[in-house]
Amino acid sequence: MPKLVDHEARRAEVAAVAADLIARRGLDGVSVRDVAAAGGYSTTVVTHYFASKRELLLHAYRSAGTATEARLPEHGGLLATCEAILPLDEPRRLTWQTWFAFWAAAVADPELAAMQRRRLLWFRELLARELDGDDEAARELLVIVRGIAAEAVFDPDDWPPERQRELAWRTIQRLIRGEKK
Amino acid sequence: MPKLVDHEARRAEVAAVAADLIARRGLDGVSVRDVAAAGGYSTTVVTHYFASKRELLLHAYRSAGTATEARLPEHGGLLATCEAILPLDEPRRLTWQTWFAFWAAAVADPELAAMQRRRLLWFRELLARELDGDDEAARELLVIVRGIAAEAVFDPDDWPPERQRELAWRTIQRLIRGEKK
Repeated sequence: MPKLVDHEARRAEVAAVAADLIARRGLDGVSVRDVAAAGGYSTTVVTHYFASKRELLLHAYRSAGTATEARLPEHGGLLATCEAILPLDEPRRLTWQTWFAFWAAAVADPELAAMQRRRLLWFRELLARELDGDDEAARELLVIVRGIAAEAVFDPDDWPPERQRELAWRTIQRLIRGEKK
Repeated sequence: MPKLVDHEARRAEVAAVAADLIARRGLDGVSVRDVAAAGGYSTTVVTHYFASKRELLLHAYRSAGTATEARLPEHGGLLATCEAILPLDEPRRLTWQTWFAFWAAAVADPELAAMQRRRLLWFRELLARELDGDDEAARELLVIVRGIAAEAVFDPDDWPPERQRELAWRTIQRLIRGEKK
């Protein structure tokens, strides 16, 4: 079914353009017209793929998740998994900026908040699998990674990649040794 | 100078109303008219204290900081300091929701981003003073506290106050023992 594949691929492409714009301008700075202009589409193309601005935004949210998943290491590994999430470079910083835009919206939007919760639990389970099912250790590692991200995105000079990796790695080694207490 | 005191106190009161509204609706859901209605003022009163919506927003940001500072323990103490910041109850969750609204805006707003950086460094120094000047330990503790907040605000059931305190306390004890490596 090549037509269906094309449709889905095109939809994902438009959603990725929207996610990138949201990262740079925030949710309220982005209209269907902006997304069309940024992607070089007509607004008709955008509205063909997304019935409403809301549908476009929800797909932009998913698109940020897809971008992160695409960065996950093929063969796992705790540090490599953390590196896929940490804002070590511009593309990963932009993904975080998309998340932050949606965090701000989620406080008044139960559907977004639920999507966000599901994604967080998905990441926590991913880390727990790498930690022999230790949910508490996975919880702590994800807190560290997200805590680093929430500083590093806004102050990359204060958080060069080496410093981010170093804290993640130190935490991983400690958690693997079981030194939580 | 009672008139000046009144002016400043009233200004702070209006800014606090704005911060609370921002926490509940996000930055773009808040107008001068909304702030006036929520505080029971006329819009003229709001515009008397703030020359522009931007000035109102910047003061709302500072107001969230003032609210956190007012929660800091008089005699210090690492756990008590962390408890002042952690979203352990509804007022502290609302303060975090105000921060998140401003994080989303800060990605495209250098002035806000700079204010945010200064506030973060202020907190880090506050913690470092309690940690015998150990900047690295203060950095790690603040990452944990902010990482917890970024999860707990959106999922208080997953992060009851005891769980937040437990991870903060475990981290404090570890850092005091100097077990970073």
